[in-house]
Amino acid sequence: MNLLQETIDKIIPASSQWRDKAHQRLSNLAIPHWSLGRLMDLAEDLAAMSQTFTPKLEKRVIVTCAGDHGVVEEGVSAFPQDVTPQMVENFVRGGASINALAASASASVVVADFGVAYDLSHLRGKIFDKKVMHGTNNIAKGPAMSREQASKAIEGGIEVALELDADMYGTGEMGIGNTTPSAAICACLTGLEAKDVTGRGTGIDDKALDNKVAVIRRAIDLNQPDCNDGLDVLSKVGGLEIAGIAGVILAAASLRRPVVIDGFISTAAALIAWKIKPECADYMIASHKSVEIGHIKMLELLKKIPLIDLGLRLGEGTGAALAMNIVDASRRVLNDILTFDELAEDVPKDNFNCSSVN
Amino acid sequence: MNLLQETIDKIIPASSQWRDKAHQRLSNLAIPHWSLGRLMDLAEDLAAMSQTFTPKLEKRVIVTCAGDHGVVEEGVSAFPQDVTPQMVENFVRGGASINALAASASASVVVADFGVAYDLSHLRGKIFDKKVMHGTNNIAKGPAMSREQASKAIEGGIEVALELDADMYGTGEMGIGNTTPSAAICACLTGLEAKDVTGRGTGIDDKALDNKVAVIRRAIDLNQPDCNDGLDVLSKVGGLEIAGIAGVILAAASLRRPVVIDGFISTAAALIAWKIKPECADYMIASHKSVEIGHIKMLELLKKIPLIDLGLRLGEGTGAALAMNIVDASRRVLNDILTFDELAEDVPKDNFNCSSVN
Repeated sequence: MNLLQETIDKIIPASSQWRDKAHQRLSNLAIPHWSLGRLMDLAEDLAAMSQTFTPKLEKRVIVTCAGDHGVVEEGVSAFPQDVTPQMVENFVRGGASINALAASASASVVVADFGVAYDLSHLRGKIFDKKVMHGTNNIAKGPAMSREQASKAIEGGIEVALELDADMYGTGEMGIGNTTPSAAICACLTGLEAKDVTGRGTGIDDKALDNKVAVIRRAIDLNQPDCNDGLDVLSKVGGLEIAGIAGVILAAASLRRPVVIDGFISTAAALIAWKIKPECADYMIASHKSVEIGHIKMLELLKKIPLIDLGLRLGEGTGAALAMNIVDASRRVLNDILTFDELAEDVPKDNFNCSSVN
Repeated sequence: MNLLQETIDKIIPASSQWRDKAHQRLSNLAIPHWSLGRLMDLAEDLAAMSQTFTPKLEKRVIVTCAGDHGVVEEGVSAFPQDVTPQMVENFVRGGASINALAASASASVVVADFGVAYDLSHLRGKIFDKKVMHGTNNIAKGPAMSREQASKAIEGGIEVALELDADMYGTGEMGIGNTTPSAAICACLTGLEAKDVTGRGTGIDDKALDNKVAVIRRAIDLNQPDCNDGLDVLSKVGGLEIAGIAGVILAAASLRRPVVIDGFISTAAALIAWKIKPECADYMIASHKSVEIGHIKMLELLKKIPLIDLGLRLGEGTGAALAMNIVDASRRVLNDILTFDELAEDVPKDNFNCSSVN
């Protein structure tokens, strides 16, 4: 049996029993009922995922998945393709946005190459090398990759996640042109028109946006992806880093660990993972609402409400990193706040800092 | 000259020159233009407040201000008044929500008593004792306190903030009944009807809500606060912990340090501080959008957009604590992300963790 199938087979739904237990505990906290709102909903989710009131969230890793896209030759992006390897180097160097925001969440950043169109052998030992091919084929002219290549890229993502063995994963990506395959996946799986799910990516103008919509429509018409088959959609109109992210998500779910989904591209990958194994959605946490118009449509399909809405449209995993602090806060809501009973019992706690009090 | 006047005199507007410098730097980051959205707006604000690209945010303190309210005898709250001292003890013990969420933001919690209606001398050395009186008078029957008492409570807040000398302040409160004076302040300063700014607080029913609205209307009609005089509004329909928070805000502004405003009650205090010295608003960061209906109206008056909307309605400083991590992220956006020029110069950074890469 292959790694993908093994991983899928290990994924079980989050525990409704632990969800109920958490609900009961949270309802008895010494606060007005449910007055911490969505932090409490998320605390329930964490208990249901981890089957404990004390989920461990110490080792936090943003997995930034990189890949290139043959479709850039259609003029769908504001930036040239060689920005992909430049940004990979910037991630390794620590000067990118994801490095800054991951530090703010006490998370580390790891980069994995699933299909950058450039030789990255000089970064050996500094990034995960899971390259399946040097960029996808142009989806406006044929399938992005074969079904076997799509599986292999997903398995690369699974391998990365298993080797990292993190307590909490965050997804991120780098790949010039990757809002195009993501919008194509979004259109296939939501059933919406390309024009209603396609945004400006890194900042294209009106004319380029019209062209991008036309390219996405052509890619779908030409390749005829089967919207009931996640692997088919991924291989025909997807991307290699999108496959890698789907692998990270499936692996996290198989380990019963939370995986914080970044923005538009990561959510397209999440949809693929969900099509492959619906139960994996139980382990996903939607981090933020992207400016990309198709994003919220995909989140609705996954029945997820994003935690943050700060007008981000950068990717790399930046939204996931920001949201990790909120997940941490929810963990503490589950574990650290006293119930009315505990308050009466005089259980000691040591979070109070009164060193500077007069 | 008294401490309040001295503090007011020290408050200067945030620097438009540093705002412009920050805008220029942020516009040159090696990312699609302004693609980190509101994190970048906030980064500008931080630079303008601190007059540097490297604002220090290490010492983070949530100042949870406590006080009681004579108006509780009108049946405006779902909880009895003795919950105020119980919760103060819970803060000191470390088992409350604010302890949990402050820990998640690497912040400490300090508690200051500005007017709890109970003797808290057994907590000496563990909380700041700035008690002005044992609870306010019932605002439905007369002014909450004298103008002198209001000034003294504000000065108590200033003293606490100056002694703490924090890099970033967060405001919080505890005081059974305190959504009532806060709604009264909100109605006075926004000019809106009491019914349009009054919510359910800790969870009163429809009948109690009608009564609460009537009590607030009566308090305003009876006391006739001068809506152009913050100190008059505060003394007539306000609260002692609200005064303390206003003091913390004024002191933070006088030190040119950011102060993260919690929810409904803290924002009522922020309005008072703003009426006293409008420029202090430059140092305020609105943390979250409370469930209390009047909250967003007050934020509009202050021209602030909250960072978070997670259905919180607890107070204590919980929203401020959550938002501190976002402020930290903005600081890193300002300082840690390379510009296109720096990327070319090969400036080393050390945020990358690649220890677990194959």
